[in-house]
Amino acid sequence: MHAVIRNADGGPEVLDWAEVPDPTPGPGEVVIEVVAAGVNRADIQQRRGLYPPPPGAPEYLGLECSGRIFAVGADVTDWQLGDEVCALLPGGGYAERVAVSADTVLPVPAGVSLRDAAGLPEIACTVWSNLVQVGRLSAGETLLVHGGGSGIGTFAIQLARALGAIPYATARTVKHQALRDLGVEEVFDYTTTDFVAALADATGGHGADVVLDHIGAKYLTRNVTALARNGRLVVIGFQGGRTAELDLGLLMARNASLAVTGLRARPLPEKAAIVGEVGTHVWPLVTAGAVRPVIADTFPLPDAAQAHRVMESNSHLGKLLLTR
Amino acid sequence: MHAVIRNADGGPEVLDWAEVPDPTPGPGEVVIEVVAAGVNRADIQQRRGLYPPPPGAPEYLGLECSGRIFAVGADVTDWQLGDEVCALLPGGGYAERVAVSADTVLPVPAGVSLRDAAGLPEIACTVWSNLVQVGRLSAGETLLVHGGGSGIGTFAIQLARALGAIPYATARTVKHQALRDLGVEEVFDYTTTDFVAALADATGGHGADVVLDHIGAKYLTRNVTALARNGRLVVIGFQGGRTAELDLGLLMARNASLAVTGLRARPLPEKAAIVGEVGTHVWPLVTAGAVRPVIADTFPLPDAAQAHRVMESNSHLGKLLLTR
Repeated sequence: MHAVIRNADGGPEVLDWAEVPDPTPGPGEVVIEVVAAGVNRADIQQRRGLYPPPPGAPEYLGLECSGRIFAVGADVTDWQLGDEVCALLPGGGYAERVAVSADTVLPVPAGVSLRDAAGLPEIACTVWSNLVQVGRLSAGETLLVHGGGSGIGTFAIQLARALGAIPYATARTVKHQALRDLGVEEVFDYTTTDFVAALADATGGHGADVVLDHIGAKYLTRNVTALARNGRLVVIGFQGGRTAELDLGLLMARNASLAVTGLRARPLPEKAAIVGEVGTHVWPLVTAGAVRPVIADTFPLPDAAQAHRVMESNSHLGKLLLTR
Repeated sequence: MHAVIRNADGGPEVLDWAEVPDPTPGPGEVVIEVVAAGVNRADIQQRRGLYPPPPGAPEYLGLECSGRIFAVGADVTDWQLGDEVCALLPGGGYAERVAVSADTVLPVPAGVSLRDAAGLPEIACTVWSNLVQVGRLSAGETLLVHGGGSGIGTFAIQLARALGAIPYATARTVKHQALRDLGVEEVFDYTTTDFVAALADATGGHGADVVLDHIGAKYLTRNVTALARNGRLVVIGFQGGRTAELDLGLLMARNASLAVTGLRARPLPEKAAIVGEVGTHVWPLVTAGAVRPVIADTFPLPDAAQAHRVMESNSHLGKLLLTR
């Protein structure tokens, strides 16, 4: 088969389309014939050599895909050849085929095309696990999500609304109308606005019951300051660095907590449990149209470098997909 | 009545025994005729002028007491004159009488003397709310509690055991045998031992599912490093400072969280809910003898200064009480 390979650590130009060995399904695994693969910001880090795949994962980029079951390993009873599926992957989605545990495969939700389903697993699992399992966001509560125009952001805004919560976001002004169409209550341009003060104003001083953040160190104190009493800050990325000074008194004054989570490195049973909850709780919302994948653009798989350039420009809204 | 008053901010010598106005019960309040009052480390901070009482609280020291109901305000139906009770207080326990919301009053648990019950409310509410509500400590999990010889420490060790969890603690060597008698699995002398390495050794590399910490900044990185995967660090004090550098990557590598909580400043409904859970879940364990108050020493109420000197020496094990 062919896959997108990395010739070195570096910019988009290190990506190449090359012939590689075919994957075979181990026990409990299936091989998916890929129709589309989602592009994630973590792929950029992996391309740069900063985010190596966990042990046992395919070496190629790609944390999610959609496609058809191509081969079934021993002990797999849930899937049959030809089933249309999407999957959360530890890697390897930028390829014609990928082997993955059957426990992290989901059916394509009704009402979503096989292609667009490629953009769902990573954001649905990330947003569900962090907003609901970790953040315990509940009806009537306020959410602040940074990067509202990202795949995660667009999904978090919709899921928060579907749960009866009130989503706020940060994003550049050019993206505001699209985010309002997705249900955001108010959105703040982080390049011109102090989001802590703006959120306090917008919520009558209440602040955020949950903050979902991918910036990390650079926003740490501001995020804690933006929390409501009993608020929960959930950090899922370090685009603004890993290490920062933290005044624990700011957390105590709010009786608040900080969780830092990653999805890719979790043990398979934890991932499988999240995928299972997503199938049970999120897929019905997708099928009902309450939450839908927002697809910014698609690129042929061999042109992954171009998709990465767009991702790094931050000008898109929603998910970028690679297609066959 | 008489109460312990502060003549200034400062050392134990600023405490004095003086005549002050009698308290009267507001709606929903009772007045307790104090038999004994617990001494807490927060009292030291308040004496120094670093921890003022929250708005509406009595100005005198004292976060818990036991005694008899002396007066009942409007709308109070749960308590009658003469009932033997103990109570979580926002302040005012170092006095002959104190007014408090009826919602933070508990009966004296069977099997505990009226006097010793004065040492239960603060530690029971602190430990229950932080280990169970915030930390979600469950059977089979490991707990690390710092200051194992403190009132909080002695109670946390016993409660963790009663819940089927495995308690580890830090404490100076002179206190180790007493903590083993209370059920600690292993205890590490923080003056001579690296508790992160010692806990890893003791748990076969697992670490702590929950850390209960009152040190704050000084221990922050070590506490995070001591956490198991999915571990929860709960900070309830800042004896080692408030502000520290934190590497969020250490939390992500463990999929871990940090909560910082205080009890005194919480709104009354939150406190009342905690007190209610303590009455429901902890009092039966006390009555059954699974968890008991450990009383280090008692002092007459007018000699509060001497109790503070002992507290500041850190040589005691368990609670210090002031008695009438």
